[in-house]
Amino acid sequence: MIRKSVDRLHPYVPGEQPKDPSIIKLNTNENPYPPSPAVTQSLLRNFDLASLRKYPDPVALELREAIAALHGADAAQVIVGNGSDELLAYCTRAFVEPAGSIGYFEPSYSLYPVLSDIADVQTKPMPLMDDLTWQMTPDYKADLFFITQPNAPTSMAHDKETIRAFCESFRGVVVVDEAYVDFAEFDCLDLAMSLPNVLVMRTFSKSYSLAGIRLGYAIGPEPLIEALFKIKDSYNLNGLTQAAGLAAIKDQHWMKSNVAKVVATRERIAAHLSERGFDVLPSQTNFLFIKPADETAEALFRRLRERKIIARYFPEGVTSDFLRVTVGTDEEMDAFLAAL
Amino acid sequence: MIRKSVDRLHPYVPGEQPKDPSIIKLNTNENPYPPSPAVTQSLLRNFDLASLRKYPDPVALELREAIAALHGADAAQVIVGNGSDELLAYCTRAFVEPAGSIGYFEPSYSLYPVLSDIADVQTKPMPLMDDLTWQMTPDYKADLFFITQPNAPTSMAHDKETIRAFCESFRGVVVVDEAYVDFAEFDCLDLAMSLPNVLVMRTFSKSYSLAGIRLGYAIGPEPLIEALFKIKDSYNLNGLTQAAGLAAIKDQHWMKSNVAKVVATRERIAAHLSERGFDVLPSQTNFLFIKPADETAEALFRRLRERKIIARYFPEGVTSDFLRVTVGTDEEMDAFLAAL
Repeated sequence: MIRKSVDRLHPYVPGEQPKDPSIIKLNTNENPYPPSPAVTQSLLRNFDLASLRKYPDPVALELREAIAALHGADAAQVIVGNGSDELLAYCTRAFVEPAGSIGYFEPSYSLYPVLSDIADVQTKPMPLMDDLTWQMTPDYKADLFFITQPNAPTSMAHDKETIRAFCESFRGVVVVDEAYVDFAEFDCLDLAMSLPNVLVMRTFSKSYSLAGIRLGYAIGPEPLIEALFKIKDSYNLNGLTQAAGLAAIKDQHWMKSNVAKVVATRERIAAHLSERGFDVLPSQTNFLFIKPADETAEALFRRLRERKIIARYFPEGVTSDFLRVTVGTDEEMDAFLAAL
Repeated sequence: MIRKSVDRLHPYVPGEQPKDPSIIKLNTNENPYPPSPAVTQSLLRNFDLASLRKYPDPVALELREAIAALHGADAAQVIVGNGSDELLAYCTRAFVEPAGSIGYFEPSYSLYPVLSDIADVQTKPMPLMDDLTWQMTPDYKADLFFITQPNAPTSMAHDKETIRAFCESFRGVVVVDEAYVDFAEFDCLDLAMSLPNVLVMRTFSKSYSLAGIRLGYAIGPEPLIEALFKIKDSYNLNGLTQAAGLAAIKDQHWMKSNVAKVVATRERIAAHLSERGFDVLPSQTNFLFIKPADETAEALFRRLRERKIIARYFPEGVTSDFLRVTVGTDEEMDAFLAAL
């Protein structure tokens, strides 16, 4: 009764969400600071909870208009989803024929191959080179390509002109997944605004401190957005998330202050780790990808775990030499350094 | 760049969500009464909004345990979704091969053919007979079959023994979509608890007055639930919805009181309409499916619309003779009768 491709599927394993509050959680790239007080206000005071008896706006117009205004775009160029994960999954169904294929770099967000397997299409992974840049083979083809920019779990940004050249030459849809871009020095929004085949994906989970509400968006050419609208669940975004997201996006100052704090902490810890002999990749995100000098990454992972500090360890391939450590508060990071 | 099957897709059109508060909205089968005060409490007082910076529980364990306890099942037999629509879509991907097919009755929930088209598989609609019962052809086959029970938009329940016999003989997965079952005299949960190929789908949108939070669940055999888990979005249910749903399901008294009020109003209005010469189908739901005596359903729809009362009119096929009218408060239904 179960589809064969589902039966043999290896599902994505999200990072651990421990319940013990004494654990220092540096494993899922959450923002250590709370969301804007405007979000709290929107839920506690301004939201009519009796209205939850009614369906939410199926097209989340007010929220999409606010997002579009922020980026100087039109609401028709924006779709919102139950986390950007939902929209990434929609892309695999909207832009790939049954006999088609999906490309992505290795390493990058480990959800892409799972989404490809769920869509039951061919995967075309492209390994990054030793310096984590890329060189496409001349005959490389796919129907959809995911670029995590800045990349995860490596924390490094790809070169903008390399991305642009790839987008211009690629014959399918390119999704630039900018989950961490608010922590970076540049973005690729102009590509989504100017090229017919490029979508930029954003999330409220990191810079807006709202992983718990599940909100992401895609922005780009109207025909691509329209295709995603055709296949989306009718009421894919609940009313509370629409209200919270609207409040959050209107408080850019709060988001940017938290980002500045995280970036300052990131740079401080990166310098410290480098001094200690760690190989620290130059991060454009809210996490560090680090290689210990005198023990394996796995041993370090376990040693930290014993001290109730959880980082993320990816045991396969080139990532197995590294540990991914989310940038927490200064206090959390000092505890991390002490535990080292 | 857009998949051909998506390009030619006719998306599902949800009922209108007007912003004018003076409109009497009897078009989307929402509950006219607000959700339990326990839901309000769970969001306003008990929920730590700062915790929204973190991802929600990806498997919603506490909520699933509460649902399982209510039905005398195990949490491993329950999956929760961003509305039951999300879970219906998962079923089309988990239980049907690319060359397979999806069956459903005509008329029933008009989302099923759209979901089949999105999954890009064959549809095998089975028309109901004139009396709205069914008679499967002896050679009928499909990989997945959706039964809306009680049926929408007809409002009538199918016969339980007929459903059981069908489930026992069908070679694929049967999803009994019980969106309206709390307003009915019986349910099919025992089939999902005893047969290897039957899932029951429930929603918080109707009886629990929580269409706005997007919450539904599927319950049934562990292997089928496990397949749905393998393809679900990692964090498909946000933290607020998990908290609200948990509070709602623990307040069965509130839900049942509202259901009793809706059923009493439904019976009063049905009797009144019958006296006036309407053909009123025997409803087991929170809406009435009615055929006017001396005008077309479409004319009545327009006449009500002019008086700021919105019902739902399905212009195609056998349903075009009828109007679907959600049971509102007694005051709303008296206004509806007066407008007639």
